[in-house]
Amino acid sequence: MEFSSKLIQNAVNEISQLPGIGKRTALRLVLHLLRQPNSQTEELAKSLVSVKNEIKFCSVCNNISDNQICEICANPKRDNSILCIVEDIRDVMAIESTSSFKGLYHVLGGKISPMDGIGPDDLNIDSLVEKVKSGEVKELIFALSSTMEGDTTNFYIYKLIGQFNVVTSTIARGVSVGDDLEYADEITLGRSIINRIPFENSIKN
Amino acid sequence: MEFSSKLIQNAVNEISQLPGIGKRTALRLVLHLLRQPNSQTEELAKSLVSVKNEIKFCSVCNNISDNQICEICANPKRDNSILCIVEDIRDVMAIESTSSFKGLYHVLGGKISPMDGIGPDDLNIDSLVEKVKSGEVKELIFALSSTMEGDTTNFYIYKLIGQFNVVTSTIARGVSVGDDLEYADEITLGRSIINRIPFENSIKN
Repeated sequence: MEFSSKLIQNAVNEISQLPGIGKRTALRLVLHLLRQPNSQTEELAKSLVSVKNEIKFCSVCNNISDNQICEICANPKRDNSILCIVEDIRDVMAIESTSSFKGLYHVLGGKISPMDGIGPDDLNIDSLVEKVKSGEVKELIFALSSTMEGDTTNFYIYKLIGQFNVVTSTIARGVSVGDDLEYADEITLGRSIINRIPFENSIKN
Repeated sequence: MEFSSKLIQNAVNEISQLPGIGKRTALRLVLHLLRQPNSQTEELAKSLVSVKNEIKFCSVCNNISDNQICEICANPKRDNSILCIVEDIRDVMAIESTSSFKGLYHVLGGKISPMDGIGPDDLNIDSLVEKVKSGEVKELIFALSSTMEGDTTNFYIYKLIGQFNVVTSTIARGVSVGDDLEYADEITLGRSIINRIPFENSIKN
């Protein structure tokens, strides 16, 4: 793409480095900003710089937080004997929005993925093992995504903590609530039959 | 969506004001930036502010430019008797990349769209009429998009300049080069039959 302006070219190049945004979309965004008042661009730029410079990570669970310890870990009403292992803060937000979990989280910051050059040392696994070792945690819930990388990470952690006295579980996989069976994929449907639950449990919620 | 951090919330709100970007995508972008080196966010923020503050519009054609007059208008080899009317700079870039046009452009900055509150006064139509009035322009090519708004804008301008001695044309509408006829929509195919061209012309390019 040829640009008649170095400024535009620069902005498009920077924006198109973001994931899922190509040069055409970047140009559309720049042209949009040019039509808006100056304040919008300045607010946008300021918020990006400040989120990057001022954000903290919770020293307990690695969740993103404005303070040293995040609101969830600091909440005395949460059950600190149950720990839910997730990939990133989006998963924390997703589970929090269900209001179904009253324990604490442990954010790994990704999953083991040799293809992307991410090994166990790049994730917050050591601090997880420390927590389990301390004996404070009674149950670990694996809530990673159901992919090859997620399963690998699950298994790696499972092996590491095998020597400690802790109950482990993974979130249930099955047909979504409200979904027709005919549209479910075979693997999901198959797993939902193998891991069927007592009928009385299904009517509790 | 509930955020555990005001900084994240702020950044997500600002980013999701951009067209085509919702809160989920905005959050994905913020989390991506948090994983990148500080310099990337700073470069991005700087490029956005500088494109907004320093960009100039060519005083002749309203194209975006780093100087008072854009490279196209300043080029003595371009034919200033042919003027191509386009909506915005993306159209200039698209036509320039074909290398099929050696005249100058006139960027309207949008099209007449009462639904979006855009009337003729919001567009660069007056300066276009001035150019035609001066007698310098011999031919006007309408290259607006083929929508209700584009056609309205074409017609509005056509009426305004009707009194002057200038040849007008619109870019050809028809089946795309390389497309199968069966996949062309009826209106496009219909127009391409009505506006058929002498066979000799089609083999010239």
